[in-house]
Amino acid sequence: MDELTASILLVGDELLVGEIEDRNGPYLADRLTREGLHVLSIRLLPDDVRTIAAAVTEALQGCRLAVVCGGLGPTSDDRTSEAVGQALKRRLILDEAQWERIRSLFSELGGIEPPPGNEKQAMIPEGADVLANELGTALGYVARQGESAVAVLPGPPKENRRMFDQQLLPWLDRNMPDRSRRVTQVFRVFGLPESEVGHRLKGLEDEYGDLRVAYRFHFPEILVKLGCDAVREERLREASADLERALAPHVYGTGEEDLPCVLGRELERKGLRIVTAESCTGGLAAKLLTDVPGSSAWMERGFVVYSNRAKVQLLGVSEEMLEQHGAVSRQVALAMLEGALRRSEAGVGLAVTGIAGPSGGTAERPVGTVWIAWGDANRREARIHRFHWDRQYNRLVSAWAAIYRVYQLVAGEERR
Amino acid sequence: MDELTASILLVGDELLVGEIEDRNGPYLADRLTREGLHVLSIRLLPDDVRTIAAAVTEALQGCRLAVVCGGLGPTSDDRTSEAVGQALKRRLILDEAQWERIRSLFSELGGIEPPPGNEKQAMIPEGADVLANELGTALGYVARQGESAVAVLPGPPKENRRMFDQQLLPWLDRNMPDRSRRVTQVFRVFGLPESEVGHRLKGLEDEYGDLRVAYRFHFPEILVKLGCDAVREERLREASADLERALAPHVYGTGEEDLPCVLGRELERKGLRIVTAESCTGGLAAKLLTDVPGSSAWMERGFVVYSNRAKVQLLGVSEEMLEQHGAVSRQVALAMLEGALRRSEAGVGLAVTGIAGPSGGTAERPVGTVWIAWGDANRREARIHRFHWDRQYNRLVSAWAAIYRVYQLVAGEERR
Repeated sequence: MDELTASILLVGDELLVGEIEDRNGPYLADRLTREGLHVLSIRLLPDDVRTIAAAVTEALQGCRLAVVCGGLGPTSDDRTSEAVGQALKRRLILDEAQWERIRSLFSELGGIEPPPGNEKQAMIPEGADVLANELGTALGYVARQGESAVAVLPGPPKENRRMFDQQLLPWLDRNMPDRSRRVTQVFRVFGLPESEVGHRLKGLEDEYGDLRVAYRFHFPEILVKLGCDAVREERLREASADLERALAPHVYGTGEEDLPCVLGRELERKGLRIVTAESCTGGLAAKLLTDVPGSSAWMERGFVVYSNRAKVQLLGVSEEMLEQHGAVSRQVALAMLEGALRRSEAGVGLAVTGIAGPSGGTAERPVGTVWIAWGDANRREARIHRFHWDRQYNRLVSAWAAIYRVYQLVAGEERR
Repeated sequence: MDELTASILLVGDELLVGEIEDRNGPYLADRLTREGLHVLSIRLLPDDVRTIAAAVTEALQGCRLAVVCGGLGPTSDDRTSEAVGQALKRRLILDEAQWERIRSLFSELGGIEPPPGNEKQAMIPEGADVLANELGTALGYVARQGESAVAVLPGPPKENRRMFDQQLLPWLDRNMPDRSRRVTQVFRVFGLPESEVGHRLKGLEDEYGDLRVAYRFHFPEILVKLGCDAVREERLREASADLERALAPHVYGTGEEDLPCVLGRELERKGLRIVTAESCTGGLAAKLLTDVPGSSAWMERGFVVYSNRAKVQLLGVSEEMLEQHGAVSRQVALAMLEGALRRSEAGVGLAVTGIAGPSGGTAERPVGTVWIAWGDANRREARIHRFHWDRQYNRLVSAWAAIYRVYQLVAGEERR
């Protein structure tokens, strides 16, 4: 076993009946991969001692690291440590410091003694290294077995992540330092279909065969992830520049910040404030903008004009225009935008009016027809879209499309 | 193997590096469980023929049904069928009807022939039963091996679910009819902490030991699921009545419909329309309401008054009041509500003003302080909340709390 391989075991009956969606697996797979470990398998297992013990034994035979999550609670169905002890052929011993900690936690809660069974949460296989839990009473630990090791972490995601990051990673640095870390860069792309993104990056994938290119469709945007061994960081930089050229102008950002964040930063930098006027998106664009912490610096106000009467009364759209062109039209989108800019103190604005579905479409204006308008005091534009998703997705992509147009306007980029 | 046991195998390198979160496992586990199969294990596997074949062999030895998902695409890394063929010791043969279908799909796309490699999507193990795919080019199938069977489904969740529900389930009905189905009922609970829900249902869990009670914290609501064998349906009805009594008035609904849906139905029934006035939630309450298909029947308009100026200009909140009491106050919440009702044609309304965080709190009004107002022409009320989540959750629970109050008012239920 030269390669640093890992296996993830997730324990809990509730995972096998579809009551709870596991959230630890993807997180740990991502973190272990970035740390230079090759994850060979993820298994979801019942709270059954024999099954868990067999899976741990198998994992230790095939991998350098087995990470076991869950089944560390105080109740009778929590039997992970018993199983790990069996797999390692070691008895469980009481960790005195942990037992004291549990007793003092109970004492703080009202001067009571822990109920019978709670001792179990302080029992670990002999010779294991303790991984402290700052957020709960379940103890984690890691035990070596020859060249390999099994790490046991609690199931609740917050406890699991904290213990992985702050306890297990330092342990790995000390005990398995011989690994090559990976560097990754995430590019955020909006406004191109997935197949077009793949098509445009075909040459890049061929040219940089030593890099891993991964796509993630995170509706309505696409995340493109480049990854390689840390020693090749220069290659990653070269590939990043090529990627941005290939997808320009649709790469609106990199890393963690999504489109509303990026627009917000741009607005703040330019001292601009924004107003929204929404019909079919019904507040969704405003919601996305105000999701951003600190958005009060640049979000001025929003109009949710779901009824035609609201469009007339709040934004001054004329009844004749609504009558003549219909609520889903270039004219009404532009009139909504104009009204919103006039009836606010914002420098830029967006307007959305459309048919999100599932009903309300006509032959001329089918479900998914959406007019978007955006602009400032000097320049106002509108554009029609025809989306083919369900109501939820039609609304989401409409709000994003409007925010994207404002971003292009504010950032001063030219549209294709 | 008397019991009907199942194993789920999910194939794809991307699942093992944390790039994609699997969504098929929990869905299939839930559906198989309800269909009376006992899911023993879920495994995530790489696109590696030997690994997949070994896992299928193991699953067929220990289970009546193995469900394999993913790795059915046209590219070189999709090798699930090759592996399943090896595990079954059968050769792959071309399904002529499927091959014709693929060719005609390509022809519709522009008169072109499928590229080399696409034939693979029409190859299935000899003797397998085809499961048609209405949504894509990947073929599914199910093959018997002695008492057991292996079913192979495509990875994309929409295709996976459709094929499971419409193709595999009828196959199971014909070929494994000897199972006892389960009935379940989901109760939707809002406004009680999880520990309180558990506490109140302790007696019910003891009394109905033959039922399974499961909790799912689907922020900001809690879903309580009762389940039992179909032959005990009467017991489920009794337990349901007891459960509703124990949690009254916090069970706002059952099944698939969430709070905005339930409120919408109630508003429509009474011929009422609603208006929203939002500061810290910034359009989120309006967004939640307009998520509901058909909400144009009862959603009138919404005001996103993120700035104080917007509160004054759009809703007529007085500057003196803002100065004297601050934007996060009972007075301003009630004034926002009053203004929204006056400046709309809605019969009921809600208003939210608070500090969502992460910054903006003071000693007197810490982050998480939110005033909610709700009412109609005759009665207007306001209430303070202090939430302790992050920005996203503080906003979400605030919007829900306001919608919940309107629901109680409209449905004529008394608050506790």
